[in-house]
Amino acid sequence: MAEHSLEALIEALRRLPGVGVKSAQRMAFHLLQHDREGAQKLSAALQAAVQGVHHCARCHTFTEATLCSTCLDGTREARQLLVVETPADQAAMERTGSYRGLYFVLMGRLRPLDGVGVGDIGVQALLERASDGVVQEVILATGFTAEGEATAHVLAQALKARGLSVTRLARGVPAGSELEYVDLSTLAHALSDRH
Amino acid sequence: MAEHSLEALIEALRRLPGVGVKSAQRMAFHLLQHDREGAQKLSAALQAAVQGVHHCARCHTFTEATLCSTCLDGTREARQLLVVETPADQAAMERTGSYRGLYFVLMGRLRPLDGVGVGDIGVQALLERASDGVVQEVILATGFTAEGEATAHVLAQALKARGLSVTRLARGVPAGSELEYVDLSTLAHALSDRH
Repeated sequence: MAEHSLEALIEALRRLPGVGVKSAQRMAFHLLQHDREGAQKLSAALQAAVQGVHHCARCHTFTEATLCSTCLDGTREARQLLVVETPADQAAMERTGSYRGLYFVLMGRLRPLDGVGVGDIGVQALLERASDGVVQEVILATGFTAEGEATAHVLAQALKARGLSVTRLARGVPAGSELEYVDLSTLAHALSDRH
Repeated sequence: MAEHSLEALIEALRRLPGVGVKSAQRMAFHLLQHDREGAQKLSAALQAAVQGVHHCARCHTFTEATLCSTCLDGTREARQLLVVETPADQAAMERTGSYRGLYFVLMGRLRPLDGVGVGDIGVQALLERASDGVVQEVILATGFTAEGEATAHVLAQALKARGLSVTRLARGVPAGSELEYVDLSTLAHALSDRH
């Protein structure tokens, strides 16, 4: 069964994050045996996305226009800028329905162990974006992981040096939690940040 | 960030087996942010495979020619025909290096609960293939799952009705196992099939 274009397909599927040899084989088998229409749709969607999707000139999220729909939305509160790591994080914030300001999407986070430094995520672009004279508060909403915290720390220092007001999402006990099942670090933060 | 071709890509990735919304988002994000070359390769590989890969006329496995390389191999023992569910199962048998006969790949198994019956897997084609006058032994190597066993049972009856000699892979204790960790059903089979 060693056929060239089947092997090439398995190899290409393996480049997807979280897909190993077995998964790639199963995917290729499924597409060829049961869903050739899906394979063709995926092929076309990849082509269209690679050609059409780039970064918003203002907030760096993915868009097909020069500016994304959020940046173009005149009803947004332009004095607030919320910084997230990824478009998925931005989508999660939007789903809360409780934020009406603008965004800046880093498209990554500092990962010194993997060689991703300040120059590799959009820090300089963020500093320029936040210094437009309109933004008054930059809300740091990078993840509460070691790398996300380090990124927030570096950004906070750089933004404060420019005289901008910087805040961070609150840490604390998640909604619906019983205290006995909350991890110790979260509990300690919830205690020290009590209000 | 709601952009049409990005959403279409996420939707197309979700059709892959084992990929949910979150995984599809992560894949799309990874491809567009870090591996546009990989996205283009995958698009081309899908296109090539859909156009080029079909079933071997003799054994039903995937091939780009009329007959697959195994069926064309004149050094194979044509009197033995080993029946597997998928090309991946065939590849696993080949890796053992201990089988030199030919194959028949069902491209599925009976799954009555999902509406996959005798007409949906290549039973009729197998009966014709096995009745070529050369095949003397059909070795059933479908999985040792409930569905694989049911498939083997149905195939065995149909093949025996045509006067063919039918065997089944042995059940027993896997190599390297300590008896105390082998499940009871396997141990019971190993005892009843002792030799």
